[in-house]
Amino acid sequence: MSLPDIQLFLRPGIIEFGWGNPDADLLPAADLARAAEIALQRRGRQALSYGAEQGPGRLIEALQGWLFREEGVSPPAQQLFVTGGVSQALDLICTLFTRSGDVVLVESPVYHLALRIFRDHGLELAPVAADEDGLRVDLLAEALESLRRRGRHPRFLYTVPTFNNPTGMTMTVERRRALAALAQSAGLLVLEDDVCHTLWFDAPPPSSLWGLAPTMDRGLAAEADRRPAPAGPIVRLGSFSKILAPGLRLGWLSAPPEFVQRCMRSGMLDSGGGVSHLAAHVVAEFMELGLLDVHVEHLRAAYRRRRDGLLEAMTRFLPPGCSWRAPGGGFFVWLRLPEGCDSGRFLSQAEAAGVSYVPGNRFCAGEGGERYMRLAFSLLSLRDLEEGIRRLAGLLESNEFG
Amino acid sequence: MSLPDIQLFLRPGIIEFGWGNPDADLLPAADLARAAEIALQRRGRQALSYGAEQGPGRLIEALQGWLFREEGVSPPAQQLFVTGGVSQALDLICTLFTRSGDVVLVESPVYHLALRIFRDHGLELAPVAADEDGLRVDLLAEALESLRRRGRHPRFLYTVPTFNNPTGMTMTVERRRALAALAQSAGLLVLEDDVCHTLWFDAPPPSSLWGLAPTMDRGLAAEADRRPAPAGPIVRLGSFSKILAPGLRLGWLSAPPEFVQRCMRSGMLDSGGGVSHLAAHVVAEFMELGLLDVHVEHLRAAYRRRRDGLLEAMTRFLPPGCSWRAPGGGFFVWLRLPEGCDSGRFLSQAEAAGVSYVPGNRFCAGEGGERYMRLAFSLLSLRDLEEGIRRLAGLLESNEFG
Repeated sequence: MSLPDIQLFLRPGIIEFGWGNPDADLLPAADLARAAEIALQRRGRQALSYGAEQGPGRLIEALQGWLFREEGVSPPAQQLFVTGGVSQALDLICTLFTRSGDVVLVESPVYHLALRIFRDHGLELAPVAADEDGLRVDLLAEALESLRRRGRHPRFLYTVPTFNNPTGMTMTVERRRALAALAQSAGLLVLEDDVCHTLWFDAPPPSSLWGLAPTMDRGLAAEADRRPAPAGPIVRLGSFSKILAPGLRLGWLSAPPEFVQRCMRSGMLDSGGGVSHLAAHVVAEFMELGLLDVHVEHLRAAYRRRRDGLLEAMTRFLPPGCSWRAPGGGFFVWLRLPEGCDSGRFLSQAEAAGVSYVPGNRFCAGEGGERYMRLAFSLLSLRDLEEGIRRLAGLLESNEFG
Repeated sequence: MSLPDIQLFLRPGIIEFGWGNPDADLLPAADLARAAEIALQRRGRQALSYGAEQGPGRLIEALQGWLFREEGVSPPAQQLFVTGGVSQALDLICTLFTRSGDVVLVESPVYHLALRIFRDHGLELAPVAADEDGLRVDLLAEALESLRRRGRHPRFLYTVPTFNNPTGMTMTVERRRALAALAQSAGLLVLEDDVCHTLWFDAPPPSSLWGLAPTMDRGLAAEADRRPAPAGPIVRLGSFSKILAPGLRLGWLSAPPEFVQRCMRSGMLDSGGGVSHLAAHVVAEFMELGLLDVHVEHLRAAYRRRRDGLLEAMTRFLPPGCSWRAPGGGFFVWLRLPEGCDSGRFLSQAEAAGVSYVPGNRFCAGEGGERYMRLAFSLLSLRDLEEGIRRLAGLLESNEFG
């Protein structure tokens, strides 16, 4: 048997709501092939040498321009840092800014695999609940105070405020302002996982936390403007995984300049140069060719159709007692089951009936989430989305989830 | 001012013996461009999706074949794991197998930037001296015993046994056997940094420590043979940085199957899939095109000429009291200065005179190395190698190193 090339493994006969992957049919393979060829033919020496620790200057400039077109505001160059995607960025941050046994605050529910990265670093996870308006900043203040009384200072807060994974919810502007202010006053580093910010379907989401940080000197969009700017303690994590291709292992972060400097001075980067350096050159070329903006528009339309198809099927087929909210972007719907249902306990029965999902409690650092499941719509056809919901509805109606 | 794309920064007027980088003129940019185009055109969906945690199966198969052609023995697939280069591999190993405050043993002198990675993880470094026959295994046994008496167990030993960075020396077969046996009996994990194994100039070096591990079931070259094999506690770290291109950020490790499994189960890989996945596909394509073996031959000849040119200039120009040994491969010569010289103290004077190097003490976790300097010949033309040595000789004769 050959070893697999890729991570995704689809089981025949099962409609997999579990995988939150971009659809491979939506990867711009031909355009990336062209960008790779140009990058290596014209700038092969740069693309194949040890990369600058901060990431290639040409990608940082392309990112500044793109973020400005998308959001009307862009970090100055010394506040940008190229990563190997959010997972690698979280890993690097844990290495440089935490020690085993430290406590960190995590939104709950939140992206479950980030929790695995934190656990690999021996971190203790303290959950802070969210509701449909995002992280409960009042509960965050309580958690900080409770930790303080025990003589502990959390190293950071991890949150996904926009099109949250798994809930699809987006933090309100009021909550964002409150969180940015609390972070500033409490000296709390906030890791804002913002991978889906650009993948909105109805209207652009509110400004990132980074953009709202109280001491952030904004309006630094002009390419010529590279003066040092004061910055709040927000680290925003972006990625090309959802908007271009996950195999690139490429992302970025925006953060205060001293944070970026510490990342650049890491032993791993001093030794090996910038991570994902080849992919960084390919994507810089792709962006310089003007291909990213139109591609993102195309993705928004494609994923919007899937979200709408899923929601329509849920409305039509799911029995009373189920509830959900329409996400404004991203890849996920967070389904609440009727009282007494436990999504974890009945996963194997669901898979036997030809439908799968991720049980809600996996996204909670502590207790909770048992009555929920995460449904990803990014990978499935409209037909499969409908058929998968039919199967789920059949199980729920037969009370097999009870 | 534009931000740089690459890490290398050459100062005008200074001959830089300090950078141990491959020469950009020797990077196979055109062939890698072709490989990238083919990989993305024909297998774009695979190359751009989340990669298998172990690395793409096609690269693992290509690696098995290549290692067998080079060394006559190849790890079974379940003992191979694709990395983002040695730096990333060391970082991952520190995350998964150590905790801040742990002690690790490091050869001395040894690759200085690996020491920075260990320090980022809060590890305490205990040096073990090497001589011209490699790591002193007798001193290693003493260090283990001394730590044991203090109730401490080192998490690993880090060593560069073949064409050592910085010394160029290669551990003898007898020492290798003794080290492999001691590691086995003491339950000591050995990280064998073997990046230059293939870059020999006169004759192939002895078998890797991995190949000598007492319980290693060797002779597993046949592609069909994938049965689980017992394995010694040696982790061998290989890389494409020196033999293809450092910007690829691609390497591999061979290790016991349970070690590979633990790496594959890391949160970072679960979340992001295999690291350097795009580069892995490009290199697999390059290898399947049959381009690697001839390229490595070409590199051996090119770097051999530079080593010979450097040694010739050293013999001609350096004053009495200097000594060195010819390295059989790799990128470095370890120059011992006359008594009373301190290479660190006089670096700035040397640079003012138009020549630079890395002072020897940077490669030593504890004291030592002050009388040495590392001269890298990989990046310099024959003319610069000679002129650089002339400048060094002038300084030494004027006693400015005193």
